[in-house]
Amino acid sequence: MNFWYPVKNELVLASKSPRRTEILHFAGVPHSIHPSSVDEIPMEGLPENIVKHWAQAKAANISVSFPDRPVLGADTMVFRDGVLLGKPKSKDQAYHMIHSLSGRWHTVYGGVSLMWQSRGLSFTFAEATKVKFRDLSDLEIKAYISTGEPMDKAGAYGIQGQGCVLIKKIDGCYFNVMGLPVSRFLDRFKDSLS
Amino acid sequence: MNFWYPVKNELVLASKSPRRTEILHFAGVPHSIHPSSVDEIPMEGLPENIVKHWAQAKAANISVSFPDRPVLGADTMVFRDGVLLGKPKSKDQAYHMIHSLSGRWHTVYGGVSLMWQSRGLSFTFAEATKVKFRDLSDLEIKAYISTGEPMDKAGAYGIQGQGCVLIKKIDGCYFNVMGLPVSRFLDRFKDSLS
Repeated sequence: MNFWYPVKNELVLASKSPRRTEILHFAGVPHSIHPSSVDEIPMEGLPENIVKHWAQAKAANISVSFPDRPVLGADTMVFRDGVLLGKPKSKDQAYHMIHSLSGRWHTVYGGVSLMWQSRGLSFTFAEATKVKFRDLSDLEIKAYISTGEPMDKAGAYGIQGQGCVLIKKIDGCYFNVMGLPVSRFLDRFKDSLS
Repeated sequence: MNFWYPVKNELVLASKSPRRTEILHFAGVPHSIHPSSVDEIPMEGLPENIVKHWAQAKAANISVSFPDRPVLGADTMVFRDGVLLGKPKSKDQAYHMIHSLSGRWHTVYGGVSLMWQSRGLSFTFAEATKVKFRDLSDLEIKAYISTGEPMDKAGAYGIQGQGCVLIKKIDGCYFNVMGLPVSRFLDRFKDSLS
C-alpha cells in the first residue's frame, strides 16, 4: 500500500487522459483506467460548478460498474475573462486560443469527484489555478501548434512538454493545470474516511 | 533547430542535475552536459545574489573549455524565513527540514547564468518562486523520506515524483522549483541576441 493513498482498494480512474494517469503514477496511487462515456454538452453556470458537474457525472457513470471500488471522475476547463476555451477543433482555432492567452492571465478549473458506493462515500470539489503566459510572437504560436500538442487539450496547450515554454508563472496548484489536483484529492480522500 | 531555442549552437549545461536536463529536453533545447567543478562554500548575502553568484561561477568554470558555445550555469536554493535549507546529509536532517516546511510557505531561488565567450554575450538573473506545503503528519514525512527522494535535493524534496503530494500550491514559475526557469531563460537568451 502506498502511504499517500489511504486505502487498499485500487482506484478506478474514469478518464482516458494520459496526464491524469501520469499524475497518479507520480504519487504512487494504484489505479486502473475505465473512461466514462459521458458526453460533455455545453452548459451555463459558474466555471467551478460546471467542472464539478462533469467530474461527478463521469464518476457516477463508472461507479455503477465498480460499486466496490473508489471511482475518480475529473474534469478540466480553461477560462479567460469568463470565456470557456475548449479543445481546439482545428489549427486555426488553436491559433486564436493561444493568441488570446498571450501575455495574459487565465484560470484553469479542475473538478474532482470521488464515489465509492459500497462504502457510501463521496465528495466533489473544484480547484482553480491562475496561469500567466508570456508574450508570444505569431511565429512562436505557429511553432507551438506545429508540435501537435495543442490539439487534444483544453485551452490548446499542455503545461508539460514544449508548452512549458509558454508559461511565465502560475498561482495555485501546478498539477491541477496538468489535469488533477492530486495533493488536495488525497487530502480529501483521507479526511472522508475519518 | 528548435524554435524556442534562438541559436544553432548546442548549449552546454554546466550541471549534472537530471531535472535540468529533463527541462531542457521538455523544451526541445539541444544540449550536452559538462558539470562544473565549483565547490559551493557557504556565503553571506541576499538569497537572489547567492544563487546568481553560484550560477555565474559554474558557467564561468565551464565556459573556459567551451568558448565557442553558450554555456548555462544554474543554481537552486531553498529558503524558509531567511534560513537556507541545503541538501540533507542524513535522514534526520531531511526529517527536520520537511517538518519545518509543513503547512507553511517557503521560497525557491533559482540563479541562471549564460556565458558565450566568442560572442561576448552573457547574462545572469535570479527567479523566486513561493511554495506552500500542506500540513504533513510525522508518518507522512517519514514515508516520504523512505522513498529516497529527499537526499540529493535542496530543501529535502523534489516537486516531481512523490514530492508532488507534499505541495498545496505555488506562486511563480514551476520549472524554477524543479531546477531551471526555462521560459524566462529562453526569453532572456533571445533578447540578448537582438
